[in-house]
Amino acid sequence: MVRSPSAQPNPVQLEFWFELASNYSYLSVMRIEEATRQMGVDLIWRPFLLGPIFRAQGWNNSPFVIQKAKGDYVWRDMVRQCAKHGLPWVQPSVFPRPSVLPSRVALLGADQPWVGDFCRAVMTRNFAHDEDINDPASVRTILKNLGLPADQVMTDAVSEANQGKLRTQTQAAMNKGVFGAPTFFVGQEMFWGNDRLDDALAWCGSVRPRDHDG
Amino acid sequence: MVRSPSAQPNPVQLEFWFELASNYSYLSVMRIEEATRQMGVDLIWRPFLLGPIFRAQGWNNSPFVIQKAKGDYVWRDMVRQCAKHGLPWVQPSVFPRPSVLPSRVALLGADQPWVGDFCRAVMTRNFAHDEDINDPASVRTILKNLGLPADQVMTDAVSEANQGKLRTQTQAAMNKGVFGAPTFFVGQEMFWGNDRLDDALAWCGSVRPRDHDG
Repeated sequence: MVRSPSAQPNPVQLEFWFELASNYSYLSVMRIEEATRQMGVDLIWRPFLLGPIFRAQGWNNSPFVIQKAKGDYVWRDMVRQCAKHGLPWVQPSVFPRPSVLPSRVALLGADQPWVGDFCRAVMTRNFAHDEDINDPASVRTILKNLGLPADQVMTDAVSEANQGKLRTQTQAAMNKGVFGAPTFFVGQEMFWGNDRLDDALAWCGSVRPRDHDG
Repeated sequence: MVRSPSAQPNPVQLEFWFELASNYSYLSVMRIEEATRQMGVDLIWRPFLLGPIFRAQGWNNSPFVIQKAKGDYVWRDMVRQCAKHGLPWVQPSVFPRPSVLPSRVALLGADQPWVGDFCRAVMTRNFAHDEDINDPASVRTILKNLGLPADQVMTDAVSEANQGKLRTQTQAAMNKGVFGAPTFFVGQEMFWGNDRLDDALAWCGSVRPRDHDG
């Protein structure tokens, strides 16, 4: 069933916790806005950093780096998954890429209409073009291409207040039980991994509007 | 496309690496025989033990036990996954359950027509009835219920030769890059997790018979 947002004054909310350095987040970032729009689901963008969450688990890197067998598999899996989803794919020559600057921008814009376009552009750089995503020049270029006041956005993104907000957001992820990315919440119901995005969307369709807040 | 096995003298082979203590293996064990039969795919049962593979990664237990946040999530995920697949589910009060004895039996019977029924019965005890799967009495009961010569099977299963064969099988899993269960192979193509069983089956449909051996 396709519900138009206008017919749904209090649409069901899908919280999307993602990390711009995460390859499985890439798969979700590229399709989640269109998928939720078609369902009339309210998409809440929640960028956060996986690094502190991995460190809290005692890991100094991505499990795809620490566990070699899993890492080897993941890069083959990504080839197949991207083919399945019709997405371009180049294995990043640096993984995981530092992502703190674009994450700060994404958090700053999380409620803005441009957040989806921005995140897709960052993900495309990382996983389709194998390009750095953390240098100010590339972030500035993405913002300018979106017709945004790049200088102002960059200044606000690196402000002390916004830096603190990203730390708080990452801590909030940990407090909610997030241990990887992407993770989706419909109310208290948690779904981990791009493999569960369709289940999370189906869950949205099964709850009454704002049921999940109760 | 449904191919009958008789029409396919050299059917594509799907290797199914699984562990009887693994909850995500449960989801695959319960449906893989019927799914491959319908496709005319040759199913190769490959029981192995995850314990030695986890220990080789430096873990002294299942990651679902070591990583508390992931473990908490997994038990909720299983409720939803079993509902989706129409399978009964009771969270095991002991996890992971020791599984060496039924694994030895499954390996002994891997080429026998009863292996699927045996594995489904063990999985049902573990994940639908919350019962021990490693005590000889319960394994014997399962074998008897299948009309098999339980005493002989048990004797053969715990023979020195069969014990060594299970160790070899587990080492072979590690050599192939297996790091979790279930894992599927179509030729050299590896698929990890029950979430990839449908992709593995689709891959079987995309290769010519015995193409994958070449």
